[in-house]
Amino acid sequence: MARRSTGGRSGRQHQKSALNQLKWRPVENPYRPIEVLSDDQVEAICDTAYRILEEVGMDILHDEARAMLKAAGADVEADGARVRFDRDLIRDAVSKAPSEVTLHARNPERSLTIGGNRIAFGSVASAPNASDIVGGRRSGNHQDYRDFLKLGQALNIVHFFGGYPVEPVDLPPATRHLDCIRDFAMFTDKVYHAYALGRERIVDALEITRLAHGCSAGEFADRTRLFTIINTSSPLRLDGVMIDGAFEMARNNQLSVITPFTLSGAMSPVTIAGALAQQHAEALAGIALLQIHAPGAPVAYGGFTSNVDMKSGAPAFGTPENARAALIGGQLARKVGVPYRSSNVNASNCVDAQATYESQMSLWAATMGHANVLMHGAGWIEGGLCASFEKLIIDAEMLQAMAEFLCPPAVDEASLGLDAIKDVGPGGHFFGTPHTLERYETAFYAPIVSDWNNFENWRDAGSKDTTRRAHELYRRILENYEAPGLDPARVEAIDDFVARRKAEGGVVESG
Amino acid sequence: MARRSTGGRSGRQHQKSALNQLKWRPVENPYRPIEVLSDDQVEAICDTAYRILEEVGMDILHDEARAMLKAAGADVEADGARVRFDRDLIRDAVSKAPSEVTLHARNPERSLTIGGNRIAFGSVASAPNASDIVGGRRSGNHQDYRDFLKLGQALNIVHFFGGYPVEPVDLPPATRHLDCIRDFAMFTDKVYHAYALGRERIVDALEITRLAHGCSAGEFADRTRLFTIINTSSPLRLDGVMIDGAFEMARNNQLSVITPFTLSGAMSPVTIAGALAQQHAEALAGIALLQIHAPGAPVAYGGFTSNVDMKSGAPAFGTPENARAALIGGQLARKVGVPYRSSNVNASNCVDAQATYESQMSLWAATMGHANVLMHGAGWIEGGLCASFEKLIIDAEMLQAMAEFLCPPAVDEASLGLDAIKDVGPGGHFFGTPHTLERYETAFYAPIVSDWNNFENWRDAGSKDTTRRAHELYRRILENYEAPGLDPARVEAIDDFVARRKAEGGVVESG
Repeated sequence: MARRSTGGRSGRQHQKSALNQLKWRPVENPYRPIEVLSDDQVEAICDTAYRILEEVGMDILHDEARAMLKAAGADVEADGARVRFDRDLIRDAVSKAPSEVTLHARNPERSLTIGGNRIAFGSVASAPNASDIVGGRRSGNHQDYRDFLKLGQALNIVHFFGGYPVEPVDLPPATRHLDCIRDFAMFTDKVYHAYALGRERIVDALEITRLAHGCSAGEFADRTRLFTIINTSSPLRLDGVMIDGAFEMARNNQLSVITPFTLSGAMSPVTIAGALAQQHAEALAGIALLQIHAPGAPVAYGGFTSNVDMKSGAPAFGTPENARAALIGGQLARKVGVPYRSSNVNASNCVDAQATYESQMSLWAATMGHANVLMHGAGWIEGGLCASFEKLIIDAEMLQAMAEFLCPPAVDEASLGLDAIKDVGPGGHFFGTPHTLERYETAFYAPIVSDWNNFENWRDAGSKDTTRRAHELYRRILENYEAPGLDPARVEAIDDFVARRKAEGGVVESG
Repeated sequence: MARRSTGGRSGRQHQKSALNQLKWRPVENPYRPIEVLSDDQVEAICDTAYRILEEVGMDILHDEARAMLKAAGADVEADGARVRFDRDLIRDAVSKAPSEVTLHARNPERSLTIGGNRIAFGSVASAPNASDIVGGRRSGNHQDYRDFLKLGQALNIVHFFGGYPVEPVDLPPATRHLDCIRDFAMFTDKVYHAYALGRERIVDALEITRLAHGCSAGEFADRTRLFTIINTSSPLRLDGVMIDGAFEMARNNQLSVITPFTLSGAMSPVTIAGALAQQHAEALAGIALLQIHAPGAPVAYGGFTSNVDMKSGAPAFGTPENARAALIGGQLARKVGVPYRSSNVNASNCVDAQATYESQMSLWAATMGHANVLMHGAGWIEGGLCASFEKLIIDAEMLQAMAEFLCPPAVDEASLGLDAIKDVGPGGHFFGTPHTLERYETAFYAPIVSDWNNFENWRDAGSKDTTRRAHELYRRILENYEAPGLDPARVEAIDDFVARRKAEGGVVESG
């Protein structure tokens, strides 16, 4: 299935030369979050969110959900979808949500604790197109999908898959999820995501994941192993297929991340405070609904507020508004007491300076907003309409650098280096000192694609810009990809399940 | 001298279409700085810095300075340059430095207050080469120098010139400073920098600046109008020509920014804590020296600690180490109680993703370290060996976006938008609502070079990446440049002075 290197010493050396990266490790942010708003201002947004839920309400397009909410005390319109929530009802329900959750991967070393000061980085997700600078831009396909999985598996800084990196539109919709979830289980040993497009797809994803983890149906729900993003249909609507999927996840102790799609100026007010009040209302409603359905089910608070370009109506990302909204989103999520999700985003149409500076704006804001889950961490361009192979590599560099930045330097007698400074004295240099020789190999961050050669050496090596170098590197990583081992019995069980479900025609409930 | 637009309505409209930018304004950072180290750790670095000054000392290559320090109580070697400083002597001297300073431009609207929560952004400085993607990379020359001045003048987000953007090596060294300072005074009305390469150059710069400001010799020192960067010759050495220049500045109430050149692993220990201890020692010694020479003279604390690539010995910038050092530098500068200088830096050899992500790392660290002076804010690539016209534009975008990010959003009844949310209701959209229509034109940051078109429109417009768009924009800005007015009598006085000094041969004291 997967191309393996020739193995042995030469194979490993080849792989090492393809990708000299940091080891897998959980990333923690020890620094105090940036707080854009005062406590009073945060309180004003929370209060407005409650008033939205009390005075406007949400359309909940799901009969069972409305019945459940009515039983819990919500004000449900008799002949419509509208539900109004008292703030005490919301507070009571939300208080049942756990403050953190461990996402178990089939490889225990790749499990992730989501919450507290941790931040986990995910791959690009849900792009309808893929691109690289040689092959150009094309509709998502199965081959590109698998290549993104292989790259995400090979890159240690990609902690999880936040959805299909690119949508393989060459696979039939009714069975696409079967191939895709199977590929997650085969090509990667990291945590992944399943789309809550109705109940059946989630049931299939849960079953493939159960088989990959090698556990019984009874054991499955003991651990959280899978997550889904639940986008509200902003403004103020929760769709039925999403609720179906989220309910199935929650009943099985799996994680739902409630992410309102509040683009300021389009689906939410043109003011950031208003967009965030609406975001908060929608997130609270979704979290409360799941806690009423399955108290204690793992949930997270997603922030995706950005603005549209008021000239074209196109979404903009990595803007000053987006960065402030991501930081304030963290302040709001901490009020709720559940993990926080943000994103690494940009609106550039190619892998260039804009793609990078917008990404850095959102990455810094997510990180300093103490996001616990970074969606679209590596590979997103075009406001999410394209997954770029080169951007994946460049983002991996940025994520690695951020992870290193989050490690404060040692400050102790040896690192303060007074003896070394005495030895070298005024006018000397530190290149050959014992203090340097003992540390130089591991003293500094080693990049994966940055080029620190001087101009002449860089020019003589072909004047390759970062995007070109990223292209060459991703090709080499793919050539050296090694699939993570999976017990052949589990592989067979998964393949049998997928074959049976395909024979049944896959999903029949909806398109 | 300067190309003027044809003027009048059409000229202004043309200029407006060339560059749609934010208005000039001082930038404040209302957010709490990121603190990488604990108070105890900061204290440990400060203590080590004092021990360096007490136990190792600095080589002060200036007879008058050593005599002055001896008189102040420092331990000065009889037959050498070494000076050891008691920490009380340092503390006492440093306590005389003002905590902030106003840099007066010849146009009062362009004056800058340096200190507190303010951050001022400067142009690239001191690059030996210039480049653009059409003309390629070349040695610095007078034409490129002037073009950078025009661009920096036109861009409101460039608050000051931190040195010659590019070194015009086609001008003779003995008189180069006369042409360059004259050009600053003519082509720009913003604050600028003079190099402290001996006393004579500073005396000339002070005189040209006095003539540009139209004040008497007696009035000149009433205000701070000029600044200089004093680099220590790390490790632990202060050169005589730098001291000559700094003394002349301090005596005239002009600003010196003491910036140790502590590249970790080369001129300072391979550990960041050690490099910062040395940075702090060198900065304290320089600040103390100037306060002993001219108590109360304006000074600032410069941080430039980054690391070298231990494979090649080349300096690296925008690294995780560089970012942490910039933030810790802010913690150290606040202990000293003087303004803090940091930089926007990268080591890329072209204007690409690396140039941008490294710049953003350093820009975020400088900003959240509460730097008051950002050197090399716009145009730096190649670790400072090249000034790029396209990078200048791209950096201006990043600086504008950062300045906007530093404005917290309004949170009040109107911006919280409850009424708008009630009006639109679930399932609607906000495009045409009164709440949106009243605000949409100014609601969001408008970029200068970012392209938010969708892929198809971007492709049909020529698939231009950001660097290409920046190239076209800088050419248009140059074509539309308008020189700031200067009283013809002052122009004549400056030209006469420059002509006289050239006739005298310019600087004779040193090369």
